[in-house]
Amino acid sequence: MADKLIKKPTTGMKDILPAEMEIRDYVERTVCEVYAGFGFEHIETPVVEHIENLCSDQGGENEKLIFKVMKRGEKLDIAGAKNENDLADSGLRYDLTLPLSRYYANNNPSLAMPFKALQIGNVFRAERPQKGRFRQFKQCDIDIIGDPSDLAEIELVNATTTLLGKLGFSGFKVRINDRRLLRAMGLCAGFEEDKLPEVFIILDKMDKIGVEGVGEELKAAGCGSEAVEKYLDYFRKIDRSAQGVRQLGELLGDRVPEGVTENLAEIFAATGDNSGADYVMEFDPTLVRGMGYYTGPIFEIEMEEFGSSVAGGGRYDGMIGRFTGQDVPACGFSIGFERIITILLDKGFKVPSSPEKTAFLVEKGMPADRLAGIMKEARDLRSEGKTVLVTRMAKNRKFQKENLERSGYTSFKDYYNK
Amino acid sequence: MADKLIKKPTTGMKDILPAEMEIRDYVERTVCEVYAGFGFEHIETPVVEHIENLCSDQGGENEKLIFKVMKRGEKLDIAGAKNENDLADSGLRYDLTLPLSRYYANNNPSLAMPFKALQIGNVFRAERPQKGRFRQFKQCDIDIIGDPSDLAEIELVNATTTLLGKLGFSGFKVRINDRRLLRAMGLCAGFEEDKLPEVFIILDKMDKIGVEGVGEELKAAGCGSEAVEKYLDYFRKIDRSAQGVRQLGELLGDRVPEGVTENLAEIFAATGDNSGADYVMEFDPTLVRGMGYYTGPIFEIEMEEFGSSVAGGGRYDGMIGRFTGQDVPACGFSIGFERIITILLDKGFKVPSSPEKTAFLVEKGMPADRLAGIMKEARDLRSEGKTVLVTRMAKNRKFQKENLERSGYTSFKDYYNK
Repeated sequence: MADKLIKKPTTGMKDILPAEMEIRDYVERTVCEVYAGFGFEHIETPVVEHIENLCSDQGGENEKLIFKVMKRGEKLDIAGAKNENDLADSGLRYDLTLPLSRYYANNNPSLAMPFKALQIGNVFRAERPQKGRFRQFKQCDIDIIGDPSDLAEIELVNATTTLLGKLGFSGFKVRINDRRLLRAMGLCAGFEEDKLPEVFIILDKMDKIGVEGVGEELKAAGCGSEAVEKYLDYFRKIDRSAQGVRQLGELLGDRVPEGVTENLAEIFAATGDNSGADYVMEFDPTLVRGMGYYTGPIFEIEMEEFGSSVAGGGRYDGMIGRFTGQDVPACGFSIGFERIITILLDKGFKVPSSPEKTAFLVEKGMPADRLAGIMKEARDLRSEGKTVLVTRMAKNRKFQKENLERSGYTSFKDYYNK
Repeated sequence: MADKLIKKPTTGMKDILPAEMEIRDYVERTVCEVYAGFGFEHIETPVVEHIENLCSDQGGENEKLIFKVMKRGEKLDIAGAKNENDLADSGLRYDLTLPLSRYYANNNPSLAMPFKALQIGNVFRAERPQKGRFRQFKQCDIDIIGDPSDLAEIELVNATTTLLGKLGFSGFKVRINDRRLLRAMGLCAGFEEDKLPEVFIILDKMDKIGVEGVGEELKAAGCGSEAVEKYLDYFRKIDRSAQGVRQLGELLGDRVPEGVTENLAEIFAATGDNSGADYVMEFDPTLVRGMGYYTGPIFEIEMEEFGSSVAGGGRYDGMIGRFTGQDVPACGFSIGFERIITILLDKGFKVPSSPEKTAFLVEKGMPADRLAGIMKEARDLRSEGKTVLVTRMAKNRKFQKENLERSGYTSFKDYYNK
């Protein structure tokens, strides 16, 4: 056929089959329940955002990956267009943090104070297609806006670790650091202020290339050996605990703004083992997190058995000010929804307590009054919480039942027309 | 500030506030529960579709309203572009029916047979902004693919009416007709085959302009008076019940394909009063439904008190063949999710059984060990299903509590640092 349509999804996106969807729905329900217990309120922003907001340098590398939406009607001037942004007036959001900041700026008179937001939604990034990475994927963020104190960080960590516990995870690690400590370490070591962003990009490779590798790259980037050695010593010698935070605070002296180390120590005290969940808190002075908008504590959750981080977040007190002209304290934690689904699928996870499934097979030519009776019977079972499928009896009933068994049907009832 | 960002959502789209979101979540949970009871399996397709599929003339008027997504990187040739589709490779879906057909064509070896799909997702239409109509809105569709029998229609009607009942609606009307009857009436009246699409567009205005108005417009469109009178008589004289279906069948004789009237009568017998829910089935020979892809029974649910239809659907046996080259029977019913939310909001609907909400107000300077104890107390209450907010005690505690009461907090606990 000349006009046959395209069966595959668009490049890099995927169709979600019922078995995976059942797990996704279960995780979403659990997310909503656990986070509601912490007072987070579910909200939603549009998938489409102003191109001006998306391209405002709040999204770092993600801005290069925007799906841009074309102007429409008279506003679209193809002949006169010089560059992409002449043609586009909007784009698909690449994260949930920028839209949340816009949302807060737009709606704050109607919102609670502090505002604890839960968002679950699709975001879009035009990355090169590769196994396990998709261009449309779900993010799940909690944010606390308007609380400048570390109670925000503590609530975020406790909520996220409680959720992971409910989903059956244990023995994981919450790594924590503070952007202000990162900065103080760099300055104390002797790096120039304007060299710091580059230093952090190199430091961020610690996981992959180790302390010595970081040292070599720093030297290759033009940092003096003495400064580099002093810098690396922080990572070699500092204890990865609340104790290490104090230790580092003493080393860095008044380069660290007042209260920063006490703040981190307090977060340690009210999370981790103290919260009763099975995980550990670790102070990690090498933790950077890519986004430029972080201003205070930053955190990441690692599960060694799965080889990558499953959640991350931090404080970003400056972003909402980009919309309102006035800074508002804000802090967020995002779980890697897709990563968690992949892990659960790989583990062969089964959703607890699925309903019992019965199939009614109805022969062709059933008299109308009897058909009405069958429908009533189905209704009664359904009102008891059971799943009932009513469908036409196939010629090959054995094959039909095998097929239905694969979809989870455990009992069958045959209805003949006489 | 020169670079202040834009606070409002993009034109025609909206931010969803917590109070509305609570109702939306409740409706979604109810949809999932009720439809799962009928054996519908939840699935998801990407929001972004191939531009070729979207512009394939399966979407009728909606195709003009597509948000087109620009090509990226080397593929985008602005200087060489002559028209829109040189610049776009994809677009945002405008409904869930076309993506479902693609999904089925792509995945059918892995799907149950018949396949009963539930989709809940956002669709996008660049309509002129107007009150109550949004450019991003949620649709909620159930479809049965692979069942050629009227059991599919019966299950769809029973599932949808059960859902509406669970959401507290009663006394509504399910209007039903069949595209093949529509065609037969037109031909029997004496209209030319190729005049029929135009006739149906006029007939579809019956609600607004009445029988005589339809007659005048048909004559103005060049239809002969005799044919028009014969045609209008069907709508004047036919009883709006299962009885009317048989009556019309006799009048139209062998212009109606075999089995069509029996099929409709059977749907009547197994739905409506017989299903126990509080609604009526009505045969409506004037029901047209806009989409060109319908091939058999069509239906729409009307609530007189709310002045518009809240659900609609029908059989579309030809669409999947556009992807596979082979026709597959298919039938769907879509509830107007946004319409239902608006009605519930207007009715002042309250979500049943929200958890009890307590706020812990913690004074600044709380010693770390006592803070850990407060967090444990919060954890215990949360594990009993309560909502606990832990937040910094404000200077103006009275104002803070009033604010929290507005967010549904009914009890408070103050923690002083000494």
